[in-house]
Amino acid sequence: MDELEQVEARIRSSLNRKESLLTEICLHVIGAGGKRIRPGVALLSFKAVGGKKDQKIVNLAASFELIHSATLIHDDINDLGEIRRGREAAYKKYGVQKALIAGDFLFVRSFRLGGTWDTQVVQIVADAATAIAESEILQSSHEFDPSVSQKVCEKIIEGKTAKIIEAAAMVGSYLGKGSEDQVQMLGAYGLNLGMAFQIVDDILDIDGSESQLGKSKGVDFIDGKPTLPLMFAMEDPRSGERLAEMFIRREKTKRQVEEALRLVKKTDAIVRSFEAAEGFKSKALKNLNGLPDSIFKESLAHLAEMVVARRK
Amino acid sequence: MDELEQVEARIRSSLNRKESLLTEICLHVIGAGGKRIRPGVALLSFKAVGGKKDQKIVNLAASFELIHSATLIHDDINDLGEIRRGREAAYKKYGVQKALIAGDFLFVRSFRLGGTWDTQVVQIVADAATAIAESEILQSSHEFDPSVSQKVCEKIIEGKTAKIIEAAAMVGSYLGKGSEDQVQMLGAYGLNLGMAFQIVDDILDIDGSESQLGKSKGVDFIDGKPTLPLMFAMEDPRSGERLAEMFIRREKTKRQVEEALRLVKKTDAIVRSFEAAEGFKSKALKNLNGLPDSIFKESLAHLAEMVVARRK
Repeated sequence: MDELEQVEARIRSSLNRKESLLTEICLHVIGAGGKRIRPGVALLSFKAVGGKKDQKIVNLAASFELIHSATLIHDDINDLGEIRRGREAAYKKYGVQKALIAGDFLFVRSFRLGGTWDTQVVQIVADAATAIAESEILQSSHEFDPSVSQKVCEKIIEGKTAKIIEAAAMVGSYLGKGSEDQVQMLGAYGLNLGMAFQIVDDILDIDGSESQLGKSKGVDFIDGKPTLPLMFAMEDPRSGERLAEMFIRREKTKRQVEEALRLVKKTDAIVRSFEAAEGFKSKALKNLNGLPDSIFKESLAHLAEMVVARRK
Repeated sequence: MDELEQVEARIRSSLNRKESLLTEICLHVIGAGGKRIRPGVALLSFKAVGGKKDQKIVNLAASFELIHSATLIHDDINDLGEIRRGREAAYKKYGVQKALIAGDFLFVRSFRLGGTWDTQVVQIVADAATAIAESEILQSSHEFDPSVSQKVCEKIIEGKTAKIIEAAAMVGSYLGKGSEDQVQMLGAYGLNLGMAFQIVDDILDIDGSESQLGKSKGVDFIDGKPTLPLMFAMEDPRSGERLAEMFIRREKTKRQVEEALRLVKKTDAIVRSFEAAEGFKSKALKNLNGLPDSIFKESLAHLAEMVVARRK
């Protein structure tokens, strides 16, 4: 799909500024790759409802990646994540001050790209971006809380990841002139895809390889961040209590973290989490039923399969 | 002007969300007052060209204050500013993590308000917001640099403060259906007003009272941030060299800072800086010449006078 290349070019042209250090920091993060799920979903949703070539969808897809990258840079500052997309985190390489500003710069540049959208699109995107901030606050209010509920865990995932993918699918299909029904169904697809994606990401934080993740492992446990697999593991009748005790410690040695991850893997938490992810994936696939057959619909289905198939 | 009250109401309604901690953090900063120069300039420029009551201008004015507040919260994280608008800085009260997210939330909410603007307006606002980020980077590249030029100092001020006030004046008059000439002249007014405002702010950091400032004093000197008065002082034939030596120290005691500020005040730096501010003020007043007489034009002129009249 040559639009994806156009999106990359648009991202780069958006960031190309005189104060080249800002450009450099942003490209350090964006140029490192990443799965481009948000722009991909936006473009595929656009095409799947019959959207024809259009500069707007390229801008839109690019702006989703800019927002996403802004949140990654700011997240790493907040979580002290050391590795991102296989590279040193921006704040480690350039300092907190400059990384913070680079994130702001990305928000503003994505806003500028949004100048060509209509009110409804802006509101959907902005509300999804708002949900990211709200979910961060919700997550931090449950930090080191071993008795967090499945409902809260899912609400965190929804705001952090699923809502913005929902928005990408909705506005992609909206710009592609999909019917109201198609926009709603693709939105639901995006939401379910995002849920599945984030659950698998949280599994990989326990069970994945760092090279696959492109970031450090075990960080959720270290930071006391409730995720679905950690929550399931702390429900385990045998190891749950011990894990909870370890989870709530503010300081954890490398050895303790390794021991904890081993314990988690002995419970049914990974299996239960994959089941949950599979459940969201199945819903996502069903959400595609109403679309006419096309290679774009197939790609959306394939994406849902891939997201859950990621394993070490 | 009852629009200013509407702006306050719009700011509050934009921030009113379920995750009430975000609302609380933002209102801690926004509710503490502040001079509301950006919304004020936007509204007055709108009215000065004959703009009639319109929801768009209220949204626009509110969004300028949201962007400004976002940068204040993030600035304080970066500069370790302890007091803001007479209150404890957000990051001190709520922690860096939550303050960082609250700033992002403000950016996004301002973006959402922008959904009702046209492309040109979005681009002017986004470019001005971009200039803020770029100016921060420029400033940080000259940190602890005693030989910074007047040109660079003015470029920093321009990006940090003047460009966004220029944007407020331009888009205010644009939405008010001013002529192209009026939009340009009011833009120039905003730019010059912003330059004068920031220079006086930088003077007050040396020569003001903390209660007037609503923030700590001497922070530019402590942080090694080049400002016009500090640059002028370091040019002083008698004390310049000694000041430069003190300026470049990464660690400064309270006593050293007090001594430095006393030294600065003995030079002609304050007078020269006020002259520079007066120069920009005069230009700003001239930029208003082409406008029809009205209480709004008078208020804009009055604002320029007030900005320079601020003294301890």
